[in-house]
Amino acid sequence: MSDSRNAYYDRIAPNHLAPLWTRLKSLVPKEPTPVGVPHRWAYSEVRPHVLESADHISAKEAERRVLILENPALAGSSQITQTLYAGLQLIMPGEVAPAHRHTQSALRFIVEGSGAYTAVDGEKTMMQPGDFVITPSWTWHHHGHDGEPGKAGPMVWLDGLDIPLTHFFGSTFREDHADEEASVIRPTGDALARYGSGLLPVGWRNGSLNSPVFNYPYARTREALHALTRAGAPDAHAGHLMRYINPADGGWAMPTMATMIRLLPAGFATLPYRGSDSTVFIAVEGQGELRVAGQRFELTPHDIVVVPGWMAYTLHASQDLVLFSYSDRVAQEKLGFFREQRLPA
Amino acid sequence: MSDSRNAYYDRIAPNHLAPLWTRLKSLVPKEPTPVGVPHRWAYSEVRPHVLESADHISAKEAERRVLILENPALAGSSQITQTLYAGLQLIMPGEVAPAHRHTQSALRFIVEGSGAYTAVDGEKTMMQPGDFVITPSWTWHHHGHDGEPGKAGPMVWLDGLDIPLTHFFGSTFREDHADEEASVIRPTGDALARYGSGLLPVGWRNGSLNSPVFNYPYARTREALHALTRAGAPDAHAGHLMRYINPADGGWAMPTMATMIRLLPAGFATLPYRGSDSTVFIAVEGQGELRVAGQRFELTPHDIVVVPGWMAYTLHASQDLVLFSYSDRVAQEKLGFFREQRLPA
Amino acid sequence: MSDSRNAYYDRIAPNHLAPLWTRLKSLVPKEPTPVGVPHRWAYSEVRPHVLESADHISAKEAERRVLILENPALAGSSQITQTLYAGLQLIMPGEVAPAHRHTQSALRFIVEGSGAYTAVDGEKTMMQPGDFVITPSWTWHHHGHDGEPGKAGPMVWLDGLDIPLTHFFGSTFREDHADEEASVIRPTGDALARYGSGLLPVGWRNGSLNSPVFNYPYARTREALHALTRAGAPDAHAGHLMRYINPADGGWAMPTMATMIRLLPAGFATLPYRGSDSTVFIAVEGQGELRVAGQRFELTPHDIVVVPGWMAYTLHASQDLVLFSYSDRVAQEKLGFFREQRLPA
Amino acid sequence: MSDSRNAYYDRIAPNHLAPLWTRLKSLVPKEPTPVGVPHRWAYSEVRPHVLESADHISAKEAERRVLILENPALAGSSQITQTLYAGLQLIMPGEVAPAHRHTQSALRFIVEGSGAYTAVDGEKTMMQPGDFVITPSWTWHHHGHDGEPGKAGPMVWLDGLDIPLTHFFGSTFREDHADEEASVIRPTGDALARYGSGLLPVGWRNGSLNSPVFNYPYARTREALHALTRAGAPDAHAGHLMRYINPADGGWAMPTMATMIRLLPAGFATLPYRGSDSTVFIAVEGQGELRVAGQRFELTPHDIVVVPGWMAYTLHASQDLVLFSYSDRVAQEKLGFFREQRLPA
Repeated sequence: MSDSRNAYYDRIAPNHLAPLWTRLKSLVPKEPTPVGVPHRWAYSEVRPHVLESADHISAKEAERRVLILENPALAGSSQITQTLYAGLQLIMPGEVAPAHRHTQSALRFIVEGSGAYTAVDGEKTMMQPGDFVITPSWTWHHHGHDGEPGKAGPMVWLDGLDIPLTHFFGSTFREDHADEEASVIRPTGDALARYGSGLLPVGWRNGSLNSPVFNYPYARTREALHALTRAGAPDAHAGHLMRYINPADGGWAMPTMATMIRLLPAGFATLPYRGSDSTVFIAVEGQGELRVAGQRFELTPHDIVVVPGWMAYTLHASQDLVLFSYSDRVAQEKLGFFREQRLPA
Repeated sequence: MSDSRNAYYDRIAPNHLAPLWTRLKSLVPKEPTPVGVPHRWAYSEVRPHVLESADHISAKEAERRVLILENPALAGSSQITQTLYAGLQLIMPGEVAPAHRHTQSALRFIVEGSGAYTAVDGEKTMMQPGDFVITPSWTWHHHGHDGEPGKAGPMVWLDGLDIPLTHFFGSTFREDHADEEASVIRPTGDALARYGSGLLPVGWRNGSLNSPVFNYPYARTREALHALTRAGAPDAHAGHLMRYINPADGGWAMPTMATMIRLLPAGFATLPYRGSDSTVFIAVEGQGELRVAGQRFELTPHDIVVVPGWMAYTLHASQDLVLFSYSDRVAQEKLGFFREQRLPA
Repeated sequence: MSDSRNAYYDRIAPNHLAPLWTRLKSLVPKEPTPVGVPHRWAYSEVRPHVLESADHISAKEAERRVLILENPALAGSSQITQTLYAGLQLIMPGEVAPAHRHTQSALRFIVEGSGAYTAVDGEKTMMQPGDFVITPSWTWHHHGHDGEPGKAGPMVWLDGLDIPLTHFFGSTFREDHADEEASVIRPTGDALARYGSGLLPVGWRNGSLNSPVFNYPYARTREALHALTRAGAPDAHAGHLMRYINPADGGWAMPTMATMIRLLPAGFATLPYRGSDSTVFIAVEGQGELRVAGQRFELTPHDIVVVPGWMAYTLHASQDLVLFSYSDRVAQEKLGFFREQRLPA
Repeated sequence: MSDSRNAYYDRIAPNHLAPLWTRLKSLVPKEPTPVGVPHRWAYSEVRPHVLESADHISAKEAERRVLILENPALAGSSQITQTLYAGLQLIMPGEVAPAHRHTQSALRFIVEGSGAYTAVDGEKTMMQPGDFVITPSWTWHHHGHDGEPGKAGPMVWLDGLDIPLTHFFGSTFREDHADEEASVIRPTGDALARYGSGLLPVGWRNGSLNSPVFNYPYARTREALHALTRAGAPDAHAGHLMRYINPADGGWAMPTMATMIRLLPAGFATLPYRGSDSTVFIAVEGQGELRVAGQRFELTPHDIVVVPGWMAYTLHASQDLVLFSYSDRVAQEKLGFFREQRLPA
């Protein structure tokens, strides 16, 4: 039997046909096998490397002077998870990272420093630690640091991109701008005032899948998180968890990456939780840890932890802990793939 | 012919039948005939009457101590336009306007005073001049003034309700609360933090057609309006015009009444505009006038002007002029009735 | 006290101010008071009058030769309910009812005859008994009868329009076409094929709030109703009740009038039901009755019954009973006004 | 310089950090490089292999007796494109392919035979050539052939699944049913009558991202296509192209795979077109060819052709040609990735 079957398989192969039944169980498995491993980048260890990069290359030469955070189990892939990319970008006073655009969407979560800006689609925004900044797909953008060289300090932020996702769908386009800096045509703060104040201009329609607000300042976000602590208990599996939204439709702020922020009061620990989305966390304030698969990852400000999809984890706060995170949940929800489990202790 | 027709009409009348052809042109006219007239209530003239009302009745006895602004052409109707109601409400220190709920939706635009609050659906908000406050349909609400009687001043706001609309659709329900004050179960500021900061709680869904934000503070609104003035010219027919939105879907903040606010820079005048919606304006800051149908209505702070639908008007600012307005535009848009014309000078 | 209050009321009246507290309970009542009364037009009684109208006036002279079904309690208003209009339209072989357009939306439910058509927005559709046909707001339309005068029979249908609603919102516009017949530019059946077959043209977007399908043939509708009877019990308060939909969004087929059809199996009776919408019913097939407010209205084919909003009614089928109905429910839902009660026996 | 940089790269590697600047151009390329190659499976060549599979394994043993159509450039991957799977499934009279469910969504496009059914989520539908059938994510389904063994013929259909997509997102779950056949609880035809007749049950809400209609019969689809030919010229780049829709929202019928059908009149040829989506075509009726990258693929009934994303192709009809196709366009649209180019001759 097996021989005749094998002979048949050989006969059909030249026609680019193959039996499903020998592969069915692996193609359509009972449960997902996580891709990649959980990992923590301690900011105290990573920071010197990030700063040293300025000795080796300028922002201009590098185009983007970034150290990629690569999942230890996916070496060489430039992936922090199967679907996401992460990196730490450095800009020094006086530098400009030249203008380009691409179909990949980018988020920036500001880690340290001051004086740098990003210019997106004709508007410049100054970046402060804790700010969440969006570079929508196919918008011209460049970054710069207005500080005085030698006097002002470096500026570092976390970059999150959907590079693997865009690659998978084969929709990767890039264009370099003729000039180092794209034109700035609106005053700083315009988008936040226009779209992020509880009002919208009459007659305006969003032509994008992204939020028209592209800088969500930490001051306002922090205030919102603390207000939640006054109004009720944190969610047992997530803490006080909020998502950044697109005010034009109430959906997620970006079409491919879900961005969230949460506060866990000192002493609070979550029950185990897992989702089909893979997630990148960065600690903003406070102290705590994330436990996953028998490992304990300490969380102090700016530490970054990745948790692949469908791995259950818990969060523990020793001091009031604020965590920003991004994942592919929004893409999974749109495609009908998102699943989550709220597990008992 | 006419005789036989008339005889026929008489014969069918007992069957509750009537010919369309004798009525067609009036039932389906070429153009709308405005209902009501444009009118201005000068706040300086109206204010003494509003304050005097406290001598005649308490908030408790009145349930709501309000002077209705009645369209001069619709006397006795309690209507400021065919579809809208407006009134000026007064609350004195130490008073409570007792809790009730109704299917009518209400908006409050705060005119003067401080120390009063409204409690809506379990949350109390302190009202400041220029704030826009929503009481959604069928939510328990009461108002009160925490100031010390004899020391603190009165508080006055503009009430806008969809009473005629609700009445027309025959969906009028009201319930009085067992207690004078409905329970307050969330801290002040909770809704704004939770829903009005560019984020939304993960997993939350809006169970209402109204915005979950129910107080849009004037400080933030004012900042947004002024930011617009730095980014471009005002719209030729409207000025810098924004609409209050529901962050859960980007739509209008309320399902039956469109609420808007605009800034006209000093010296700016609009081109003539008309919409099929009838509109109530209240001046917030500055100085100017509204011209309609050959009349000039001065606009100084707190003056109220009504313009019936399909009457062209212009706005003129002698000083930076901020105008809040509400109309039935959102209802008209949903039903396919909204039309507007941007006319030449 | 009363005297001083009255003096005060008199003093403020010239300023177009009135106290709310003397009117509050009537403006914001505890429950709606139905407007109009329930009524039945027996088709057998009404039909001779409709046919006789052809002796008095031509379709061309009448523009639309229609007998208005006027609510007995609203004589002279041309209203069958507070928000809706109904009429029976007659067209004779060889006639044309000339082209016009208006902001009022119209539905046609075909009663009897064959050979007549309606042309809407460039497409002609032949009308068969039981078909539901839409004339969207502001689309050119004319009707005609291709039958041979003297040989072919008359054609009668029920017209449902949102005339009172459009009037209330003051958005009434009408235009008469330069020609008696507007141009027909697409073949008959095009819209149904293009939009009503479970597919839509790639790239097409609906520019209207109405369904792009404008004739829902009874043959397909009837089949759907009967399929429901094979799959489960009828709803206890409604029977097998379906709504005509807009395939572009799954919403109601029209923006202001909800259109529904239902089948009650022989012997079935509903439990009492009331909604805040007022409803017009027409019997299509079978036999039964509608009971409301102590009255029993027999239902035989083409009989028309109106039930004002918030009046509880029951339906009883002695033979398999098919009922078409229209109401303002869709408008009420959009505005947050719709309420319904499913009452016990 | 290069040496010191390399030393730096080596130093940071143990921290799972890598420089972006050495990889930027390949990670974020100027244009997509198509994955896989265009290919044609002639049904006349493939069919004998499909039929022979019945000699080697039963439907029950195979669970699904399918020959995978594997892209020649992606051997061993079970992929017809980077994101899609395709296979030809055979069922013989008397057989049952046992019930299971999985997060992968499946479409069936029926190729030949009669007498077989698929049962999805409690309803059985008989499959006819040209029918488009949906198995939504996570719904129980089994297939069977009611024909008499030895008398009735085999039945073959094309399976399209989003296996690579589901795998990429790591959301792969499968469950085998306790019984060979899942319960059938609704009569055949129920879903089409209930959801596919231009009506929807009052009160029903779709709990799924898929269309509630799960069999789109070819008879109705074909009629729609031919109606289009009477109403205007075909689109220059696509022919008369329609998409299967979800009547609950007007969107695509499935959340991850866009399904389309088109008719090209005899003699018509399209201008070159490319989209970022990769597409699988199957010829339904007629004769023609698809030209891509210098190759000509003949199209006769049941021939299958794959075109990777961003490769321009033209279609040529020698006889009236009907083509069904599926692609990942719907996923790309939701995520903001879809791009298309309509090229000149």
